[in-house]
Amino acid sequence: MALIVQKYGGTSVGNPDRIKNVARRVAEYRSRGDRVVVVVSAMSGVTDGLIKLAKDIAPLPSEREMDVLLATGEQQTIALTAIALHSLNVPAVSLTGAQAGIVTDGVHTKAKIHNLTPKKVRELLKQGNVVIVAGFQGETPEGQITTLGRGGSDLTAIALAAALQADLCQIYTDVDGVYTADPRIVKEAKKLEEISYDEMLELASLGAKVMQSRSVEFAKKFDVVFEVRSSLNDNPGTVVKEETKSMEDVVVRGVSLDKNQAKVTLVGVPDKPGVAARIFKALGDATVNVDMIVQNISHGSLDKVGATDLSFTVDKPDLLKAQKVIDGLKKELGFRDVIATEKIGKLSIVGVGMRSHTGVAAKLFETLANEGVNIDMISTSEIKVSVVIDLAKGEQAMQAVHAAFIGC
Amino acid sequence: MALIVQKYGGTSVGNPDRIKNVARRVAEYRSRGDRVVVVVSAMSGVTDGLIKLAKDIAPLPSEREMDVLLATGEQQTIALTAIALHSLNVPAVSLTGAQAGIVTDGVHTKAKIHNLTPKKVRELLKQGNVVIVAGFQGETPEGQITTLGRGGSDLTAIALAAALQADLCQIYTDVDGVYTADPRIVKEAKKLEEISYDEMLELASLGAKVMQSRSVEFAKKFDVVFEVRSSLNDNPGTVVKEETKSMEDVVVRGVSLDKNQAKVTLVGVPDKPGVAARIFKALGDATVNVDMIVQNISHGSLDKVGATDLSFTVDKPDLLKAQKVIDGLKKELGFRDVIATEKIGKLSIVGVGMRSHTGVAAKLFETLANEGVNIDMISTSEIKVSVVIDLAKGEQAMQAVHAAFIGC
Repeated sequence: MALIVQKYGGTSVGNPDRIKNVARRVAEYRSRGDRVVVVVSAMSGVTDGLIKLAKDIAPLPSEREMDVLLATGEQQTIALTAIALHSLNVPAVSLTGAQAGIVTDGVHTKAKIHNLTPKKVRELLKQGNVVIVAGFQGETPEGQITTLGRGGSDLTAIALAAALQADLCQIYTDVDGVYTADPRIVKEAKKLEEISYDEMLELASLGAKVMQSRSVEFAKKFDVVFEVRSSLNDNPGTVVKEETKSMEDVVVRGVSLDKNQAKVTLVGVPDKPGVAARIFKALGDATVNVDMIVQNISHGSLDKVGATDLSFTVDKPDLLKAQKVIDGLKKELGFRDVIATEKIGKLSIVGVGMRSHTGVAAKLFETLANEGVNIDMISTSEIKVSVVIDLAKGEQAMQAVHAAFIGC
Repeated sequence: MALIVQKYGGTSVGNPDRIKNVARRVAEYRSRGDRVVVVVSAMSGVTDGLIKLAKDIAPLPSEREMDVLLATGEQQTIALTAIALHSLNVPAVSLTGAQAGIVTDGVHTKAKIHNLTPKKVRELLKQGNVVIVAGFQGETPEGQITTLGRGGSDLTAIALAAALQADLCQIYTDVDGVYTADPRIVKEAKKLEEISYDEMLELASLGAKVMQSRSVEFAKKFDVVFEVRSSLNDNPGTVVKEETKSMEDVVVRGVSLDKNQAKVTLVGVPDKPGVAARIFKALGDATVNVDMIVQNISHGSLDKVGATDLSFTVDKPDLLKAQKVIDGLKKELGFRDVIATEKIGKLSIVGVGMRSHTGVAAKLFETLANEGVNIDMISTSEIKVSVVIDLAKGEQAMQAVHAAFIGC
């Protein structure tokens, strides 16, 4: 008699047949005696359709009203899912985020969950119902409709699992779990049985977008063990949980390749205090998200100010904005030139085992050298090594690195 | 500085351009200094699309969940309308039915408004906002989402106008107002400047479906004067209000033709007490809506039970159901035969002036006789005379009756 929270994403509820499939799966768990809370996203395409409608009316619609608009997507799915469960003779009741007790702050389109009092959910479960909760949404203490931003439905599921002290939290998606690498690029990629929150966080932030970082952070904070698995089959997925001793035996848990970065290099930047601060403050003010930063040693002589090269990476969609900011600073800072390129890939290896193993970075560089892949930038953390390389060699490099660290 | 409640139906908000048009009209009223509350329906097609989705999942979806599902349609329109007003620099805030304080009973899909406390609406108006309220929906005191059934958005507007003691309530639709007859049939039909609640109710129930009866009844009960007018132009519409003395000068306000009725005749019904009761009780139990009933005089001799013919009309979609009920009673009641036809039209003349004018029915019958139109059934009320005639002669009859009573 476990209490299970299951979350189904947009493709898993993308049409009436898929919603019926979800209902069948839920009914199966329930027939074993489990109590089930289901969190659903909007049907795939619905949210984009609503955004298009709004943008057809005004290019920059009010965020409060976008929340009122977009919250309808999930509200439709909860009703349809309840209807599908009824047709299998399973008692089921749908709840909007607000009805489920999800109270958020008032930051529209990216609200944070303030508190969650799932009194109604508990009551309905006790009466024998499957409870279906709209993901992605909540309301402020004043009764304003809010949404939680991208990946918000995962967050709803994990927050509900924490508040209800669920025995199990399952995140159903269209992949079988978390892989050692993207299986479309690396044929030998293996599905992981388990992964630590920290590794999952690094992989998420490195472009292996199974889940948004903030849901994983929330799960880590509230110690919610969750499983990422497919809604298309019955294969066990990947369990995401606190690091265990045995996890350290594996040096590299996964390899990721982020193709969504662009690189900007400022050539001949005067090497004086405050220049870097000025540049990145300006980029931050323009809400440009900077990822890696590398500055080379200055070669200036003692009697005059030296010049250095400064490189950083940004998300590709932010590149134009970043270039504008940098162009605006040219006179003030006096650098010689700017070079920007989108033809880079960021390859990363991630694993908590790195903490207790040496020579990991060296082995990575050697592997890349053997493949004739030049390294542009390097960045490391306790459980991660990232390198920026030529985009054209990205997949080849990834396959070689996967073979070297994880094997076949 | 009037307080105006405006209601826009599904076609008036059917796409982004039309929503922008609505916003322009609202902005115009506001620029004159009026305070405006806008009630909107779901964009045309949205509700039907949602119903289809639900029926694809289960043929008889739960009414509670249908309310959760369908309430999203209006919620989308309020957000989009607010966005459109913002783009004209008009401050606007959207409210769901629940947020606007519309509390209903728990009869899902056809809830009744219990009470309406528009505290939030008043606050927002005071702050200078246009307030946009989702029509057709409310919530129970326990926080369940409900919908008000067909024509529910009109009801929302009229109830809000009553609760806010609005100076004006405008029902925007795709016709210019209420006409003396359907202009598609009678070229000479004239738009009415005003009409009484009772006349409007008779016309609504007689197939001239500008508005659902229940909204008109609500307006009558709470003495809400409202105007039916077009969202496509600036022409004044028809004002619906309590009967005034001067209204009685007009004998016939309008002529309607209901083509949606079917007639059932039971031939040779034994003329004994309780037979009619048995028949119409059985029809009622099967939720068949019976409209007109006519029974001819019995010609039985004194020493045996006489036989009579009994005719009644039902909505066309109910005809099959009605025939089944009648067939099931044949043995019990012993009538000789059943004749059913869909080829009838119900022509009606309506006007409060009939109360103080005599000879109205006679003039109607004479007009029809002159056109060679045979009368099948007759039914009268204080302010209405209806006749059932051959469907094929319906439009010709209507034109003649319109010419006789209203002129060109």
